[in-house]
Amino acid sequence: MGFIDVLFGRPLASSEDEGQRITPLQGIPTFGLDALSSAAYGPEAALTILLPLGLLGVQYIVPLTAAIIALLVIVYFSYRQTIAAYPMGGGSYTVARENLGAGAGVLAGAALMIDYLLNVAVGISAGIGALVSAVPSLQPHTLAMCLAVLVLLTIVNLRGVKEAGSAFEAPTYLFVGTLAVVIAIGLYKVVVSGGHPVAVVPPLRQGSAALQAAGLWILLKAFASGCTALTGVEAVSNGVQAFKKPVVPAARATLTAIIAILILLLGGIAVLVRYYEITATVPGQPGYDSVLSMLTAAVTGKGIFYDVTMFSVLLVLCLSANTSFADFPRLCRIMARDDYLPHSLALRGRRLVYSEGIWALAILAGLLLILFQGVTDRLIPLFAVGAFMAFTLSQAGMVGHWRRTAAGFEAAHGMLINGLGALATGITVMVIVVAKFAEGAWVVVLLLPAVVVFMKSVRRHYEKVAAETVVKGRIVLSPRNIVPPIVIVPVERWSAATAKALRFAMTLSPDVQAVHVACEADESLPAWQWEEDPPAGMRVPKLVTLPSPYRLVVHPIVDYVLKVEKENAGRTIAVVIATIVEKHWYHYFLHNQRGQMLTALLLLGGDKRINIVNVPWYLKA
Amino acid sequence: MGFIDVLFGRPLASSEDEGQRITPLQGIPTFGLDALSSAAYGPEAALTILLPLGLLGVQYIVPLTAAIIALLVIVYFSYRQTIAAYPMGGGSYTVARENLGAGAGVLAGAALMIDYLLNVAVGISAGIGALVSAVPSLQPHTLAMCLAVLVLLTIVNLRGVKEAGSAFEAPTYLFVGTLAVVIAIGLYKVVVSGGHPVAVVPPLRQGSAALQAAGLWILLKAFASGCTALTGVEAVSNGVQAFKKPVVPAARATLTAIIAILILLLGGIAVLVRYYEITATVPGQPGYDSVLSMLTAAVTGKGIFYDVTMFSVLLVLCLSANTSFADFPRLCRIMARDDYLPHSLALRGRRLVYSEGIWALAILAGLLLILFQGVTDRLIPLFAVGAFMAFTLSQAGMVGHWRRTAAGFEAAHGMLINGLGALATGITVMVIVVAKFAEGAWVVVLLLPAVVVFMKSVRRHYEKVAAETVVKGRIVLSPRNIVPPIVIVPVERWSAATAKALRFAMTLSPDVQAVHVACEADESLPAWQWEEDPPAGMRVPKLVTLPSPYRLVVHPIVDYVLKVEKENAGRTIAVVIATIVEKHWYHYFLHNQRGQMLTALLLLGGDKRINIVNVPWYLKA
Repeated sequence: MGFIDVLFGRPLASSEDEGQRITPLQGIPTFGLDALSSAAYGPEAALTILLPLGLLGVQYIVPLTAAIIALLVIVYFSYRQTIAAYPMGGGSYTVARENLGAGAGVLAGAALMIDYLLNVAVGISAGIGALVSAVPSLQPHTLAMCLAVLVLLTIVNLRGVKEAGSAFEAPTYLFVGTLAVVIAIGLYKVVVSGGHPVAVVPPLRQGSAALQAAGLWILLKAFASGCTALTGVEAVSNGVQAFKKPVVPAARATLTAIIAILILLLGGIAVLVRYYEITATVPGQPGYDSVLSMLTAAVTGKGIFYDVTMFSVLLVLCLSANTSFADFPRLCRIMARDDYLPHSLALRGRRLVYSEGIWALAILAGLLLILFQGVTDRLIPLFAVGAFMAFTLSQAGMVGHWRRTAAGFEAAHGMLINGLGALATGITVMVIVVAKFAEGAWVVVLLLPAVVVFMKSVRRHYEKVAAETVVKGRIVLSPRNIVPPIVIVPVERWSAATAKALRFAMTLSPDVQAVHVACEADESLPAWQWEEDPPAGMRVPKLVTLPSPYRLVVHPIVDYVLKVEKENAGRTIAVVIATIVEKHWYHYFLHNQRGQMLTALLLLGGDKRINIVNVPWYLKA
Repeated sequence: MGFIDVLFGRPLASSEDEGQRITPLQGIPTFGLDALSSAAYGPEAALTILLPLGLLGVQYIVPLTAAIIALLVIVYFSYRQTIAAYPMGGGSYTVARENLGAGAGVLAGAALMIDYLLNVAVGISAGIGALVSAVPSLQPHTLAMCLAVLVLLTIVNLRGVKEAGSAFEAPTYLFVGTLAVVIAIGLYKVVVSGGHPVAVVPPLRQGSAALQAAGLWILLKAFASGCTALTGVEAVSNGVQAFKKPVVPAARATLTAIIAILILLLGGIAVLVRYYEITATVPGQPGYDSVLSMLTAAVTGKGIFYDVTMFSVLLVLCLSANTSFADFPRLCRIMARDDYLPHSLALRGRRLVYSEGIWALAILAGLLLILFQGVTDRLIPLFAVGAFMAFTLSQAGMVGHWRRTAAGFEAAHGMLINGLGALATGITVMVIVVAKFAEGAWVVVLLLPAVVVFMKSVRRHYEKVAAETVVKGRIVLSPRNIVPPIVIVPVERWSAATAKALRFAMTLSPDVQAVHVACEADESLPAWQWEEDPPAGMRVPKLVTLPSPYRLVVHPIVDYVLKVEKENAGRTIAVVIATIVEKHWYHYFLHNQRGQMLTALLLLGGDKRINIVNVPWYLKA
């Protein structure tokens, strides 16, 4: 059981080991990484939208950030309640499904999956964006570096990292600490200079010099982009059981700390951007420099401190992608257990992680990064829709929860707070969809129903299968007429492997046939010899030779087996196939293809009485 | 057996059906398509190299073409002899392997494979190039159209087209006929105008206006590019047995006709290009127009005749890619039978074609087209090396053939002609490699040894396996101590499928255990009931429940099976797995993943006594 289970807290792991429960101080890096890291890309995303306004644009960042912080406070109170109501862990899928029904649950699950997927892409590309800001000569290699980080994260997660906790603490507190220092020094300089600080390294000026008045439209779009700063806030409510008991106060304290730090970071960045007059630069183009990079350079210059700050940003952004790697496969597992996804997503791989979910996430995120050439900004419109839709459904579910489980003041109070949260995030979803529709939100609007339809059809299939194979009560066995099968052993030529298969076949039934396909007219398989004469009356294997004028090998065997099946109504057939087990995986394509083809054709063509037996032969080479 | 077998004539098919043998007149489209179609891209390739020389460049096309025709004549006489010496079909791999040893054979096979692969890419992209010349607005969609043709060819070949012969005759003769008309009218106009014909539609003039003197280097490069006109000449020698008896004169007549037509086309095009002063345009760029297109427009104008001519060029070029689709999988099969490639390449798919070879070819050609953005010209340096290397090895093999099998004048005569062929094509290989090294021939120079090393390592692996599993003499069976296996049936829950598996298990052995993994502490699988009481002394199945505190399902079963194996030294184990057979292939990922994982883990962890039995359950849903 990897420590990563505890990191992103699921009851499964945490209930097993009381000693691994965490304090609020440990909880901040564990659950706050994703939320705090979004301080690095939220303001940048809003400023990028304000770019056409030139210097005038930065005037709007303070009121916009105030609106975002207000939304954050509403969401905060809302999630405080979720923590108390679902101390066992209240993911959006669970809360929506229990309170709003299966449809809402699937919608929340689908929205969350899209969110997690985009979080990987946004986190990695923002991290690499920070690196490119620091070392501009790396700019042409943006995509390659993004994919390298993705591969690294995938490998680490597939291996199932243990004890990664301390690895998360250092970068988180370094990130928060350095940014706090930048903000403190910056604010001091702003105050001392009477609102006109002089930048140590003047920020770049890209974008049109011509100022244009800000329309409501561009402000809405900037707000919609800036809202990505809220993503990751739900993480604490998912993992309440990871905390030391009593869990609810500990989890709430952690949430409070995370939100407080996030508000300080967002507010501080907004004010400094305003007074240092920092405009965004165009991502993915030469000369690109991230807002945090320009801000840090303006406040402290490009010394050692700048390097440390940028390194911590890079680290935290890339690690924030790791949240998805821990959560996405788990969500897949929960939904697979509810039959909404293929059951194989609920299987643990060899390193006790849900490998298939990790693979799925890695492949999809890789495709996204390639499609968007590794540039965050273009992904952000896609990102926020899924996250806020999951928020909304979770809050709305909480409203249902209070109506179902509480009464009087408690119900009214709960419904009010969560209702306000649902309303605020719901409106935000609509703002984002409308403001960002043309820029990419339409992808999510189309994708979401498609994912939901897919999940529901998977469920329907499993339901049909269950109805078809259901056994009511106990199964019935008959002690009579237990007739051994007719065993057929296809033999291309005698080898240690086919001899082993024939010997095993003889232990299954007295009716054994070794079947050989003769491609040449005069070809025949030499018969075996007996160690000693078989006793009289013993049924010994037959050797059957099938002619094959067209030199086909597999089809004559299939035809023969089907003929035997037809001629022996009521008998079962066992086809014993000698299977080569390779020592090296890359030898896979060198063996057994014929056996697999035979298996496939027999299963497709058979009349339900043909069974396949694989007798392995282990290669040493 | 598809007619395509006869089309590209291999003894396998032709020996089966005397009635499907073809006459020389049918042989020209069947075997000449690839060779004749190269008249459409050979001159163009040479002219593209001459582009920097401007109008002066077209002066050199006539002597260059004369050199290429001389090479063609040498190769012609050389292949006439191969036909006589290998009436059963003498592919380069076969001839080189029989006469020069396995190493040379593998080298020829690898070169041929690269050649076939490139032929697909060059044929398709040249065909689409012709289309883009006719309809310039399609130019931005070059790559997409190339891939569409590739997909079409792949599907057609995977389905196993029958009776495609007549489909090939019409376009071939249309192509030869229209080009002959263009050449005849053009030459007439040249003569009438006293060497200064007036173009109906003046050809485009791209490239630098500044004339520069032709160095030897640029002429060598143009020659190397123009040599692609020779590719496909070997096809007749591969399929001698497809002809009506006596095969050798018929095949030789076909070869003579193909070479004669090709010489007329190449010579005619060269003279007309010279007098109409047609320079190439840059492929893959707006305004691109193929040489044949400009030539036809110059001679006949852009009327209906132009359209018909361009359509026939398009058709013939795309169909020439089909030659590879017929030959590549067959070469794969021959080499797989000799252990140089995975044996699965020698297996026929459901439509009786070598599907894996077709898939391999299609995927590789698709990657090439994408990599080179669907533009022929960039592929040509890669193309000619493989083809001419196979030529050289085949001719050199023939020299060895004469030395081994003939004497006196016959041997001297044969060795002289094939030796001259080997020398000429060998020198050409070197010219191409040197002249085109920087432009892409280096890829083949690196790729070829890599392919050879791969093939040899595959062979080495198969040899090791054979040594490991070889049975000397007859296999020995013992009539005593035939002990049934211990049969273990993992049961997640009772269903029609698991009940069927248990019932089948009971027919294999009296030692049957149904094994259930209990994830919850109080969980247990209900036991079965007996239709009637089992007779006294009958061994009935046991129900084993395995606890799983970590809720793992697969691993406890694996551990249990391994424990049973260990505790019962000398006994064999059969693990019976209920396997769901889906009705629709796209349900594949919904079922059996746990069974497959169990199988993989048991085969990896087992001590050679564990066998796997699949009992299928057929879904109706």
